[in-house]
Amino acid sequence: MSGQGQKPTDLLSRSLNARVLVKLKGGRELRGKLKGFDAHMNLILGEAEEIIDKNSEPKQIGTVIVRGDNVIMLSPAVKSQSD
Amino acid sequence: MSGQGQKPTDLLSRSLNARVLVKLKGGRELRGKLKGFDAHMNLILGEAEEIIDKNSEPKQIGTVIVRGDNVIMLSPAVKSQSD
Amino acid sequence: MSGQGQKPTDLLSRSLNARVLVKLKGGRELRGKLKGFDAHMNLILGEAEEIIDKNSEPKQIGTVIVRGDNVIMLSPAVKSQSD
Amino acid sequence: MSGQGQKPTDLLSRSLNARVLVKLKGGRELRGKLKGFDAHMNLILGEAEEIIDKNSEPKQIGTVIVRGDNVIMLSPAVKSQSD
Amino acid sequence: MSGQGQKPTDLLSRSLNARVLVKLKGGRELRGKLKGFDAHMNLILGEAEEIIDKNSEPKQIGTVIVRGDNVIMLSPAVKSQSD
Amino acid sequence: MSGQGQKPTDLLSRSLNARVLVKLKGGRELRGKLKGFDAHMNLILGEAEEIIDKNSEPKQIGTVIVRGDNVIMLSPAVKSQSD
Amino acid sequence: MSGQGQKPTDLLSRSLNARVLVKLKGGRELRGKLKGFDAHMNLILGEAEEIIDKNSEPKQIGTVIVRGDNVIMLSPAVKSQSD
Repeated sequence: MSGQGQKPTDLLSRSLNARVLVKLKGGRELRGKLKGFDAHMNLILGEAEEIIDKNSEPKQIGTVIVRGDNVIMLSPAVKSQSD
Repeated sequence: MSGQGQKPTDLLSRSLNARVLVKLKGGRELRGKLKGFDAHMNLILGEAEEIIDKNSEPKQIGTVIVRGDNVIMLSPAVKSQSD
Repeated sequence: MSGQGQKPTDLLSRSLNARVLVKLKGGRELRGKLKGFDAHMNLILGEAEEIIDKNSEPKQIGTVIVRGDNVIMLSPAVKSQSD
Repeated sequence: MSGQGQKPTDLLSRSLNARVLVKLKGGRELRGKLKGFDAHMNLILGEAEEIIDKNSEPKQIGTVIVRGDNVIMLSPAVKSQSD
Repeated sequence: MSGQGQKPTDLLSRSLNARVLVKLKGGRELRGKLKGFDAHMNLILGEAEEIIDKNSEPKQIGTVIVRGDNVIMLSPAVKSQSD
Repeated sequence: MSGQGQKPTDLLSRSLNARVLVKLKGGRELRGKLKGFDAHMNLILGEAEEIIDKNSEPKQIGTVIVRGDNVIMLSPAVKSQSD
Repeated sequence: MSGQGQKPTDLLSRSLNARVLVKLKGGRELRGKLKGFDAHMNLILGEAEEIIDKNSEPKQIGTVIVRGDNVIMLSPAVKSQSD
């Protein structure tokens, strides 16, 4: 295989409307439905929740825009039930 | 669905004049009416208040310009009563 | 309303010669008359004072150029008496 | 020999579908199959696992997109059994 | 008044050969005669001195080039006697 | 002599296939054969070893790609025996 | 006087082959003969030594390439005996 393989932005495209887990610098973790993104990896998450720690209920925070430079990694593996 | 979904800047556009919650690097949180923004996510918040902690009254700080590189996330879900 | 609303730089333009409060990374706060700025949010403040803490007199530091990447937020609400 | 030798992105290309070890700022380590990358060194890792410490089982995290600015180094030497 | 007011670089130009005080990230302070600068706010200071603390004599360090991204603020108000 | 002297990238070119010592932000040190680099100072090191401390054996880590923004300095002085 | 005065890169040019003192982020200090540089202030230092502290002998480190974004300031005042 040559080239760059699958493009990270293509995987983001295919993850639209699925639930994703986003780890941010500073220890923050968010889960939500990926509603959009741009070239800087700025994200829109819908029905988002902030994961405080393993023993607490996640906090419901609705729709959020995350500025891309805070993102460490994004896991598109967590599919939403309804998709 | 293909492409990038909803653009983060489009969601900002639709949030103009609504109240938004902005979390900044370093732990600062602001709430205010989104009056404008630019491509760097520099923001203008009107009738802004700084949220110190849950037990204190937020501090009224009027109109502020926030430099975009400080923004972690912005939640446009908090609608202003008057909109 | 569509578009980006009011541009942050337009608000800076309208704040020229008014007193502004500038919060910088690292906890520093400055107050001064906004004499100029550029696209990076580099600022010129005239008759500036550095605010140490609430119990101390602010320190008079005259005219300063602030490099924009240090700015967290700028509040143009504090009008100078003489404007 | 002149020029720049082997290009880092060429080595990434040749490592596609092989297992790689990625060390991130902040002490995080990931291992996974390199599925794609771009010019910013944004990565897609498949069948990824996060390495917590030497005495714990690595945590299976599925497919992840890693934002390139978090990468310290990437070791393409760990070949996948199946390649 | 409209536009951007006085340009930060114009004020730097007018401060050439005057003594300036420069505050750097990490707490370092320098004083010296501004001999030149560029668009990144890289600076040349002549007859520079590093200010350690208020009770110590400043350390004479001659001519220095300061890389602009370290600059927090620069105060051109301190005129050299000989200008 | 005028101009910029020897270009840093030329010295990197001349160091190809020689062993180099690389100091990274965060205290990490690597030694390895420089196999390639690019304009961002992204590096490929072959037969690399990570230097933990002076009393421990260095850890053999094979081939690594180092993202350039982590590099503090690179010393091309350590010639490989076999070159 | 108008313009930007002396360009920082011109002073670097004039310092070629002279010994310079370079202060880096994180407290590191290097001294060496400036052999070259580029627009990012990436530097080549020859016959370099790392200054640990005032009571220790500096450590001889030969030729080093310093990545420019680590530089706080560079003092070209320390002339080499042989120039």
